Amino acid sequence: MVGGSVPVFDEIILSTSLMNQVITFDSISGILTCQAGCVLENLSQYLDEKDFIMPLDLGAKGSCHIGGNVATNAGGLRLLRYGSLRGTVLGLEVVLADGRVLNCLATLRKDNTGYDLKQIFIGSEGTLGVITAVSILCPRKPKAINVAFLGCNSFQHLLETFQCCKVMLGEILSAFEFLDASCMKLLEKHLKLSNPIGECEFYIVIETAGSNATHDDEKLHNFLEEVMMSSLVTDGTVATEAAKIKALWSLRLRVSEALTHDGYTYKYDISLPVEKIYDLVKDMRGHLGDMAKNVVGYGHVGDGNLHLDITSTGKDPALQAAIEPYVYEWTSKWKGSISAEHGLRLR
Amino acid sequence: MVGGSVPVFDEIILSTSLMNQVITFDSISGILTCQAGCVLENLSQYLDEKDFIMPLDLGAKGSCHIGGNVATNAGGLRLLRYGSLRGTVLGLEVVLADGRVLNCLATLRKDNTGYDLKQIFIGSEGTLGVITAVSILCPRKPKAINVAFLGCNSFQHLLETFQCCKVMLGEILSAFEFLDASCMKLLEKHLKLSNPIGECEFYIVIETAGSNATHDDEKLHNFLEEVMMSSLVTDGTVATEAAKIKALWSLRLRVSEALTHDGYTYKYDISLPVEKIYDLVKDMRGHLGDMAKNVVGYGHVGDGNLHLDITSTGKDPALQAAIEPYVYEWTSKWKGSISAEHGLRLR
Repeated sequence: MVGGSVPVFDEIILSTSLMNQVITFDSISGILTCQAGCVLENLSQYLDEKDFIMPLDLGAKGSCHIGGNVATNAGGLRLLRYGSLRGTVLGLEVVLADGRVLNCLATLRKDNTGYDLKQIFIGSEGTLGVITAVSILCPRKPKAINVAFLGCNSFQHLLETFQCCKVMLGEILSAFEFLDASCMKLLEKHLKLSNPIGECEFYIVIETAGSNATHDDEKLHNFLEEVMMSSLVTDGTVATEAAKIKALWSLRLRVSEALTHDGYTYKYDISLPVEKIYDLVKDMRGHLGDMAKNVVGYGHVGDGNLHLDITSTGKDPALQAAIEPYVYEWTSKWKGSISAEHGLRLR
Repeated sequence: MVGGSVPVFDEIILSTSLMNQVITFDSISGILTCQAGCVLENLSQYLDEKDFIMPLDLGAKGSCHIGGNVATNAGGLRLLRYGSLRGTVLGLEVVLADGRVLNCLATLRKDNTGYDLKQIFIGSEGTLGVITAVSILCPRKPKAINVAFLGCNSFQHLLETFQCCKVMLGEILSAFEFLDASCMKLLEKHLKLSNPIGECEFYIVIETAGSNATHDDEKLHNFLEEVMMSSLVTDGTVATEAAKIKALWSLRLRVSEALTHDGYTYKYDISLPVEKIYDLVKDMRGHLGDMAKNVVGYGHVGDGNLHLDITSTGKDPALQAAIEPYVYEWTSKWKGSISAEHGLRLR
């Protein structure tokens, strides 16, 4: 994982937290320009009053800065619907190592004059310059949000549910996330969260976001009928009001927190062809046997992005040696990536 | 405009038309990998059978190559819905000037390992290397398509119609294009196309693409009722079947062809804040007076992208001197771009 902000020897940590102002927002185009130190959740709240949303959302939204999101090319929960920051970031202001300011702070949806220099800074983690301001295209706030929490008894069924979902929910699908039964056990044990449905091998969080509540309800109803009738999904519950939506989402978003209570955690952020993502978890379990406390899988099915986390009672070099390079070789063999959304690992 | 493919002195033109093979297509992820010389329309037909579409579409689809689309960072009609090639292109293979092959032909939705080198080649028009293969994320084919052709009597009404459209059509809106009354006159005169509605100052083409025909019809109906009742739109017609959809689209797509019949054409491809785009056409008309045969405006309202074309009976250096640098200074004053989607003008 990233760890770029953790000083190990004598590194200097640069905080942009005082650069926290919105510069402009254009409610016709939906283009927001702000300083790099704005906290993602504050920007979301600012836009909410104007009936817009940020094109990205992630578990760390309460503390992460937009400049850091761009510098690490953060993915998160809305990538499935609104695409990556490479498309939504329209402009950047960057301070280079020699103090020069590179002003690429355009607010145009389309601009093909010259090379698109800002792209080089997206995802480069400050190694080429420090991002000081960002302009970003924000989508309209959807009028209706639904969340479904479903259970499947095999990863194959989960994949078939995903295919069916893409066809039947189409343009209103805004997230398709999963966690496995081991994650659920840790949520129950360490955070005292309760499983809202019957015990299953895999749990799915599906979110829809659309402009017409009646239409969205009908699409979701038809989809649920289809996956229940065909036994792809064995149990499920649906939320339309904010508190229950938040409760269902927390089962996915608090997995990472539950893991920290389970012990020392080795974390991996892997991209793979979607049909292969869970094989890595199973193979890793077989490979490690009793060496690990827990080996769990969760993440963004819609983006082919697996979070593979392995816990241990303490830091354990023998365990780490068993995990690496095994995990990298496995990923390489299936033409995956060892950093999907969490930074470029230049360290 | 571009003109990069027109030899003026002793340039060498490189054609990739024999590199026209699809390499792979994954129907789970929707990721297509193909050679650079594939014609855009052929790729669209290939995907159609598999229930997918290309994330871009443009007037030149019958002859343009996907490699050229990427090299010029082409925009087109679907950018409003599916975003720019910077988000949808997942990988590139590029041959550098010294003959080395740069293989960035990833097929992952997310990959943050190292710098994203392929971005440098998107939109760089072959100046840094020749694109030989592309992998690109393709959306599912929508189950229902509707096209509405509407008339407004002022650009202000057109902008208000656009705002209303974004709210009421939301996630199913796939295109919002316009042409002015001068364009319509040229379509009638040179191509014998007929205006399907009453005479207006501005004409709009709106396309919806969704997963449920009944829902889409209802959204479109509600939207049309709203804009007709409030007199934003004075006349209109709707198409749901393929032949009529094609006929309505041709009124927008054949403007460029009609202009070539009107005389020598000076073409400009401008990005501006959306509320300013038509002011440039009006100011240019006033500025040129009788010097020009016709000054017309059309383009992609949804992207803030104006095509400003000026016709003359023949090549006319005095006219050109009156247009430039006026058009560039005007655009610069309003912080626009002089190349929205048609290449980077390195020549």
